[in-house]
Amino acid sequence: MKRVAIIGAAGYAGAELTRLVLGHPDLELVTVTSAAEAGKTVADVYPALAGCTLVYAEPALASIAANVDIAFLAVPHTAALALAPGLLDAGITVIDASADFRLRDASIYAAWYGVEHSAPDLLADAIYGLPELWRDALPGARLVACPGCYPTATLLAAAPAIEAGVVTSGRVIVDAKSGVSGAGRSAVPGTHYVAVNESVAAYKVVAHRHTPEIAQGLADLGLSDPRVAFTPHLVPMTRGLLSTVYFEAGAGTDTDAIYSMYAERYKDEPFVTVHPSGRMPATAEVRGSNRAHIGVAVDAASRTLVVACAIDNLVKGTSGQAVQCANIVLGIPETTGLDLPVPVL
Amino acid sequence: MKRVAIIGAAGYAGAELTRLVLGHPDLELVTVTSAAEAGKTVADVYPALAGCTLVYAEPALASIAANVDIAFLAVPHTAALALAPGLLDAGITVIDASADFRLRDASIYAAWYGVEHSAPDLLADAIYGLPELWRDALPGARLVACPGCYPTATLLAAAPAIEAGVVTSGRVIVDAKSGVSGAGRSAVPGTHYVAVNESVAAYKVVAHRHTPEIAQGLADLGLSDPRVAFTPHLVPMTRGLLSTVYFEAGAGTDTDAIYSMYAERYKDEPFVTVHPSGRMPATAEVRGSNRAHIGVAVDAASRTLVVACAIDNLVKGTSGQAVQCANIVLGIPETTGLDLPVPVL
Amino acid sequence: MKRVAIIGAAGYAGAELTRLVLGHPDLELVTVTSAAEAGKTVADVYPALAGCTLVYAEPALASIAANVDIAFLAVPHTAALALAPGLLDAGITVIDASADFRLRDASIYAAWYGVEHSAPDLLADAIYGLPELWRDALPGARLVACPGCYPTATLLAAAPAIEAGVVTSGRVIVDAKSGVSGAGRSAVPGTHYVAVNESVAAYKVVAHRHTPEIAQGLADLGLSDPRVAFTPHLVPMTRGLLSTVYFEAGAGTDTDAIYSMYAERYKDEPFVTVHPSGRMPATAEVRGSNRAHIGVAVDAASRTLVVACAIDNLVKGTSGQAVQCANIVLGIPETTGLDLPVPVL
Amino acid sequence: MKRVAIIGAAGYAGAELTRLVLGHPDLELVTVTSAAEAGKTVADVYPALAGCTLVYAEPALASIAANVDIAFLAVPHTAALALAPGLLDAGITVIDASADFRLRDASIYAAWYGVEHSAPDLLADAIYGLPELWRDALPGARLVACPGCYPTATLLAAAPAIEAGVVTSGRVIVDAKSGVSGAGRSAVPGTHYVAVNESVAAYKVVAHRHTPEIAQGLADLGLSDPRVAFTPHLVPMTRGLLSTVYFEAGAGTDTDAIYSMYAERYKDEPFVTVHPSGRMPATAEVRGSNRAHIGVAVDAASRTLVVACAIDNLVKGTSGQAVQCANIVLGIPETTGLDLPVPVL
Repeated sequence: MKRVAIIGAAGYAGAELTRLVLGHPDLELVTVTSAAEAGKTVADVYPALAGCTLVYAEPALASIAANVDIAFLAVPHTAALALAPGLLDAGITVIDASADFRLRDASIYAAWYGVEHSAPDLLADAIYGLPELWRDALPGARLVACPGCYPTATLLAAAPAIEAGVVTSGRVIVDAKSGVSGAGRSAVPGTHYVAVNESVAAYKVVAHRHTPEIAQGLADLGLSDPRVAFTPHLVPMTRGLLSTVYFEAGAGTDTDAIYSMYAERYKDEPFVTVHPSGRMPATAEVRGSNRAHIGVAVDAASRTLVVACAIDNLVKGTSGQAVQCANIVLGIPETTGLDLPVPVL
Repeated sequence: MKRVAIIGAAGYAGAELTRLVLGHPDLELVTVTSAAEAGKTVADVYPALAGCTLVYAEPALASIAANVDIAFLAVPHTAALALAPGLLDAGITVIDASADFRLRDASIYAAWYGVEHSAPDLLADAIYGLPELWRDALPGARLVACPGCYPTATLLAAAPAIEAGVVTSGRVIVDAKSGVSGAGRSAVPGTHYVAVNESVAAYKVVAHRHTPEIAQGLADLGLSDPRVAFTPHLVPMTRGLLSTVYFEAGAGTDTDAIYSMYAERYKDEPFVTVHPSGRMPATAEVRGSNRAHIGVAVDAASRTLVVACAIDNLVKGTSGQAVQCANIVLGIPETTGLDLPVPVL
Repeated sequence: MKRVAIIGAAGYAGAELTRLVLGHPDLELVTVTSAAEAGKTVADVYPALAGCTLVYAEPALASIAANVDIAFLAVPHTAALALAPGLLDAGITVIDASADFRLRDASIYAAWYGVEHSAPDLLADAIYGLPELWRDALPGARLVACPGCYPTATLLAAAPAIEAGVVTSGRVIVDAKSGVSGAGRSAVPGTHYVAVNESVAAYKVVAHRHTPEIAQGLADLGLSDPRVAFTPHLVPMTRGLLSTVYFEAGAGTDTDAIYSMYAERYKDEPFVTVHPSGRMPATAEVRGSNRAHIGVAVDAASRTLVVACAIDNLVKGTSGQAVQCANIVLGIPETTGLDLPVPVL
Repeated sequence: MKRVAIIGAAGYAGAELTRLVLGHPDLELVTVTSAAEAGKTVADVYPALAGCTLVYAEPALASIAANVDIAFLAVPHTAALALAPGLLDAGITVIDASADFRLRDASIYAAWYGVEHSAPDLLADAIYGLPELWRDALPGARLVACPGCYPTATLLAAAPAIEAGVVTSGRVIVDAKSGVSGAGRSAVPGTHYVAVNESVAAYKVVAHRHTPEIAQGLADLGLSDPRVAFTPHLVPMTRGLLSTVYFEAGAGTDTDAIYSMYAERYKDEPFVTVHPSGRMPATAEVRGSNRAHIGVAVDAASRTLVVACAIDNLVKGTSGQAVQCANIVLGIPETTGLDLPVPVL
């Protein structure tokens, strides 16, 4: 039984982490922190977790360090930079759901996040936590940088085609659609019900911070000189993320062959389902679960390979992936705590 | 390990039953039937249950009877009438989520459902499955009639006040609001997205079949001559049910006293939370869970006691309650398979 | 052509007023004010009004007074108290959509709004602007207090039964359901998309400020000693308001008779439709329009008269009613600017 | 005053046409037909059009021909093939909102719609009704083929860049998102509220029938050898369509230059707004209106031009465009009946 702290536990990702750790047979949740909700119980803030009497504490490093074996960071970028070194020094395994340790090049971090990286020496040791693609690096890791939600869906959609050499041209169009929980729990004009409901819109076009992370991942998969055009869209729903990815496809590629290749690539992955040819995934299929559902199609006329990947932005896109990584790091069977059937609607 | 069949497993309630039984450590799902989806796997029809390779069978009594210890019926009314006698004769425990065995008076059934009751002799043995109110009758029961979703929320809202004698006058206003899944999986004009979205409306006013069931339950709780005005409303959401119940309140009643009474009444109930004075429940709090959340308020000026109860219509309102009843019937700890944290949003 | 100012024009009600005045053939919009959006154009803030280059001004009394014949106040309570006396002194007709002049008794205002009424001398002259019920008082009025959205729907639902003497007992249950725009444009936790979506909840139970206004209106209609139990609910939709009202009905009342009475009462009202017996209104029917749709049902068993009234909270519930009142005040045909077909979905 | 028939008037597009013609000062609606709703009034079927007592008739050619000057066809493909020749022979102007006369090449029609074109001789005379791009052909036209909703948004997004020669490479990625009303009024599993709500999914990937129409339009605009990868998505909202279009952009292109070009191209168009650099349109901005809102961005790193165009699928995407075309055909000022402010939320 490993003792767990969740730092930033009152945000949406933190709350889903709380849910998953509470239901995990090998993890014991001992500390939840939240500057904004300090003093309240989890059940006060999230009535869906009725019965959970843990009290949000101020995020004080010393008390966390004294009590836990592993810490999940569900904090905004830069906050993880401030916390991780101390936690690591105290011998605590850090699973970071923020952006702070995802980009290996500190200058790219500075360029996209507008702030110098204060712990560049840790970047070399941070393991990018996308088990289906880079599982082997995780066992025993000290610091795991969990991918963003958009990169998770996009890289899962891209990997088989790139690994198999079907896609070689660098230009990749990523048109992604996310539910509103991805925007976080803050009440701002853009998250007002009236602003979101009955509308769909692109946002942060050519400017979303997940762009360099997607490019880094595509390069790691073997794509030379990736040129990523990434356009996220906001959709009127609470949860869910669909990434529709477009690659230039060589002549002769067909949907059935691509399907077979994808199915083979992911056949042993417990959390990935590749739909048969002609069937595309819907985000509702993965609501609340750690699964990724993928569909593929080749448009022969335009020589385009279209791959869509649906995940729950708060589970496979954040909290579930963090637990999956923790399981691997700790030597716990990978699906532990993540394999229960979820509500079907 | 008890072997389980779910009859009518491809409807929404049946699918949620499937989910709950699959996650239940002491139940083994061996048979799922569906006339409409026969031959398909559960995962085909409900991708959220990816990995479930059980195949929907035709609902043939003989094969069900030969293989299981307990059968959940998630079928329309009259279909349970046709199935239950044979299952009981075969020694199978029947947990019926339909309306067929809820009303003890066969003539009231005939009046509201427009068809004669074909098994009136079984009515005396059918146990009304609302554990928080009538738990003691359940252990060892052969036939359990699980309440409708509206009666569940309404009777949980009413019980403490009636049992304590605070409410004696018979007139009760029940204004309830349900998500669309309560209307079932059939594609009809009234369930078209465009018909439901951005609209709220009352339906089946003065004519909903849960009315006599609510009245029967109120009488069983001790209310003399219950006169129930029940108005259900359809709300643009998938799941969730809120019943707002209005009673004439005696002079001198106040919110704090009522709160204390409700809190005391339900303090040992694992699935019921009574919110502190001044706080009302939202259906989102119980989405996907077997919980009921209750809030109370007394309007001194109009001498009205207002009690609101939120449940998930497909869990505490149907499938979860069925599993809860089955646990009690079978001597399994009551919360087994129902106590895992659910997604918080 | 009357010159119009809209004060508080950047809130939702103000924006809908802007839309209606822009489309009104006899009104000319010359001034829109907004402290929050001063300096921006209407089209900047509301792209649906693309092409409207009016610039939001600071709400300065002097410049308003110099330029317009009529002012619509779409401001929070107390702000109208500050503005109305000066506007009236300048000879400007004031159509106030706030709560400040609705309650004739200043002490009730103080009790419910928590602030002393600073212009009690104006209360006697303020005309309550619900034309279908009190039209005769409006022509030539100097100060119109437009009703709240909940009182509008509730009083339209109640009037025929009270006027005809069918309802005499004072206890009235008002269970109302509103879209989120009723909560205003401020981004607060309660208007976050994630907080509202997929949930229904009661709010401000026994405490909503429209309660005394409903009671005042019921008394004005002839109900002696009205005892109002009013419970508003928040529903996941942008616009729309349904008030379901429950009265004790005398023996012998039936739905058809009540329908005939309601149909007769409203037969000449251009904005009211009474649905035939057995049909209840949906808020989608009136989305974007100034209409009120009403359905009635008598529950003989419980001796309850149920009346549901659907309006668009931002039109008949606010801005449309304000324009309708202005038309009457100014001697313009009552439906001018309000009679165009609205989108059907 | 021109006399109008709407054929297929009870579908969503037909109902919106009904709304627009009822509000049009120069058109008189004399006939509405619907096989499914024959005998009912418009107000019965669409309560939002309360007061409209026109009765849906069976779609009988003879009686239509005798009574009207112009007919709008809001019928499924092939139904217009059956109707148009007779109407034209009777001297009636036909504005066809179906797909039957959009593709100039009958063999492409046969390939995509799976049926031979029964009136190929009319194809040469059919005018493709997208006024902003091909206005000059419309005055006096006898048969107008109104574009599909996806082609409308996509071609408006593409035209300025192609016309200016900025885009020359033929490969175009069209990732579009539509509300559910685009799927029509039939209650089928895919339009069930529960199937649509809280989910986003691609559909008919590589197979949607608007693909050849988009390609034809791009070629007409001057793009050589257009290769269109078109992926429509279903979004949980009633109305609205966003087309996000990706072009290969030459080096040196920048967002400001593209914005200027687009703004210049559409500066005199009454229904098109180009948002300033950095701002993307939301479908809510155009809900209920005939407007198209466009945003542009250049991603220098990936050499991609991203253009998003938002329309209301039922107005600019169907009914409004049909009225706009009719205005031009008939010599009525183009914005007549389409220029009233619409609800802002």
